[in-house]
Amino acid sequence: MKQNSKSEVLYQKAIELIPGGVSRNTVYRKPFPHYVAKAAGCYVTDIDGSKRIDFANNMASLIHGHAHPAIVEAVAEQLKKGTAYTLATEAEVALAELLISRSENFDKIRFMNSGTEAVMAMIKASRAFTNKPKIAKAEGAYHGTYDFAEVSQTSNPFNWGDINSPNSVPVASGTPQSVLDNVIVFPFNDIERTLAILDTQADQIACVIVDPVPHRVGLLPANKEFIEALYNWTRKHDTLLVFDEVVTFRVNYGGAQEKYGVKPDLTALGKIIGGGFPVGALAGRADVMTVLDPGQSRLLFPYSGTFSANPITMTAGRVALELFDKSAVEALNKLTNTAIIQLENAIRIADVPISITGAGSMFRLHFRLEPPQTYREAYQRPGVATIINELLDFLFYKENVIMINTCACMFSTALTQKEVDRLSEAMLNGFRHIKPKLDELYKQNINFL
Amino acid sequence: MKQNSKSEVLYQKAIELIPGGVSRNTVYRKPFPHYVAKAAGCYVTDIDGSKRIDFANNMASLIHGHAHPAIVEAVAEQLKKGTAYTLATEAEVALAELLISRSENFDKIRFMNSGTEAVMAMIKASRAFTNKPKIAKAEGAYHGTYDFAEVSQTSNPFNWGDINSPNSVPVASGTPQSVLDNVIVFPFNDIERTLAILDTQADQIACVIVDPVPHRVGLLPANKEFIEALYNWTRKHDTLLVFDEVVTFRVNYGGAQEKYGVKPDLTALGKIIGGGFPVGALAGRADVMTVLDPGQSRLLFPYSGTFSANPITMTAGRVALELFDKSAVEALNKLTNTAIIQLENAIRIADVPISITGAGSMFRLHFRLEPPQTYREAYQRPGVATIINELLDFLFYKENVIMINTCACMFSTALTQKEVDRLSEAMLNGFRHIKPKLDELYKQNINFL
Repeated sequence: MKQNSKSEVLYQKAIELIPGGVSRNTVYRKPFPHYVAKAAGCYVTDIDGSKRIDFANNMASLIHGHAHPAIVEAVAEQLKKGTAYTLATEAEVALAELLISRSENFDKIRFMNSGTEAVMAMIKASRAFTNKPKIAKAEGAYHGTYDFAEVSQTSNPFNWGDINSPNSVPVASGTPQSVLDNVIVFPFNDIERTLAILDTQADQIACVIVDPVPHRVGLLPANKEFIEALYNWTRKHDTLLVFDEVVTFRVNYGGAQEKYGVKPDLTALGKIIGGGFPVGALAGRADVMTVLDPGQSRLLFPYSGTFSANPITMTAGRVALELFDKSAVEALNKLTNTAIIQLENAIRIADVPISITGAGSMFRLHFRLEPPQTYREAYQRPGVATIINELLDFLFYKENVIMINTCACMFSTALTQKEVDRLSEAMLNGFRHIKPKLDELYKQNINFL
Repeated sequence: MKQNSKSEVLYQKAIELIPGGVSRNTVYRKPFPHYVAKAAGCYVTDIDGSKRIDFANNMASLIHGHAHPAIVEAVAEQLKKGTAYTLATEAEVALAELLISRSENFDKIRFMNSGTEAVMAMIKASRAFTNKPKIAKAEGAYHGTYDFAEVSQTSNPFNWGDINSPNSVPVASGTPQSVLDNVIVFPFNDIERTLAILDTQADQIACVIVDPVPHRVGLLPANKEFIEALYNWTRKHDTLLVFDEVVTFRVNYGGAQEKYGVKPDLTALGKIIGGGFPVGALAGRADVMTVLDPGQSRLLFPYSGTFSANPITMTAGRVALELFDKSAVEALNKLTNTAIIQLENAIRIADVPISITGAGSMFRLHFRLEPPQTYREAYQRPGVATIINELLDFLFYKENVIMINTCACMFSTALTQKEVDRLSEAMLNGFRHIKPKLDELYKQNINFL
């Protein structure tokens, strides 16, 4: 980072206007965040002229990287015709049709403006359909900022409680106790404990919500057996099994859910389905989705949204998903797998206690010898967090590589073997840079690693 | 409406994909909604070739109508550079600076993706700052779809209860009882009753939320005395007074709040500040906004959002607001006032029991002799609703005029005297069309009118 860079000067202005200078904590960086001048494909250039390879892709939302020509062209065309109306548009129907064609689990779909709104709508739809008040979710899983959905997302060793009955820990200060009381927290991928926890309040649960590869839990794929156990439990108790695939829809052509033997009742979507524009969607079983139908004599879940299904997002999303066809999904997953293999090689060469988890076009590094199996194993202890930040800074400033601040990569189709090689090389340098501190930490407390 | 129109055919497809065929209940129309081919300025053309004057402006969100050349140009330029990054952008800082410069009540600001998200963030920030669980809101007021915010938005004579202590009525079926228990409902503009209601739970209230010209309450401006009474009450009880100006920011250069003697602590924004793209914002007192600052050693309200402050929305919003300067606000309000005067004249000529409420560039028709003073007075009885729908259909199909389905207009700067004259003429025809039914209803039940 340069002293008195343009980004630093701009940030001095930003902190006078915006709390902490950013509207998104994910772009926050000490001593100051960097500001983008332009981006194309997998390269982002900041206002100080530094050009970096982007492995974060706006928190996994840009499946084709930046400013894909086909998306730019289609959006520019729509732009001239207007961006939003109090009437409907064909663009909405086209994206609905495309998404429904990708999964036999999507009978019907409806659009919102963000993943947060999609998950909120999914929970409200579940309550409306079942007439039950509570939800169950995995400890550590991020599902947006709706307060019920975010409970226990940031649980830590000081507050998470007994694994047999994890505490409902608020994320935001001032969260009403009754919100916490309406959220049941279970340990991800732990069938026995989870079913025992669910059983304690079986008649109260509107839905069991699962991200099939939850990033904040550790980017650990849900076991087939775990999903099946949840499915069977929900069938027994007139409860819904609902998936948050806002991040994970990229994993297969029909989302991460494609690989499981059972169907979720509802799925929340977002990120890549908007082609780089604000988006959310709720898809699923026709009978459940009917709660949203304004044509019903009794509308159980009234919902609108000024910008929902706006034709800019719908157009960009359609083009992005048309380009992300079966062969594109396969090629991207293959490239990502190559990257993982190369990074595992770099880990061996640098001789560092690091492991990798992930699925499809996503992976995350963990600073422990063996990949974590649970949120509590994946939880980054303070000593580790400092080393990760040092690695991320090294990659960002010395190697011109942008990663997600959990030390994760979310690939785009704009990446090629060339950038993967650059990542492996950069990461090897980074591993060597942090190795002394990592070894030191390892010696101090082997249990953490 | 034409039989076998393109819109009808498309809708047949849409209902197979989307519950009721729409993602927004506001665009729902029987027997089918209409689909837009293109729009420019104040004119919208549907896929069957019908061109209509737009007085709805995507539910009040398009202050310059459709596809304003300056917005199109600026957005097209940004589009080529990318639409969203995991880094910050100068566009965010520029819009933040512009909005803060418009109101001395905005010390700091932060962006979200929708008005719903802005109100949710406002409530969560209030709870985090005060560490109190409840909110108080006006009966009938729409504040988006966050379940706490939407309580009692659709209260009706069968469930609204005693005016001295209105019931907390759920909007969505399955809303947890504890959500209802955390929302205190008061009658808008009724100082005595409202203060008595607030007093009953004075130490539990994080914020009193007010839309200063609540559309769904009746588009009645809040009295100066009412706002002052709320302000003084909140000062006494360590509670926040927060404004929902998602719709009403258009009313003056600095929002509807500009005309009151007291300052709200926080303000939720949306609609016009995004220049036609998905947007929300939370602005207000520096010390309260600090709960969102990721630089604090203890972050009280963690918040992110994949598309929050994306440079497309920020750029479009900046250009839209630059063009909506003090003289533009004044000219638009003047044109709207002319329209109201002309419509009052049409009401007299047609001799119909109709009255008008509103503020700034917004007005709403009520099917009663005198303008309503309260939500309960403004509440549309079933007989009235049918007549309103008949009027709206007449205007839409016979006169090519688009209004909001409450019989409201939200003006844009693209409108001129020519379109206002057309509206007056169309409305006079419409009034004459519905007069027999309205007279009949009036005779049947004079108390409703």
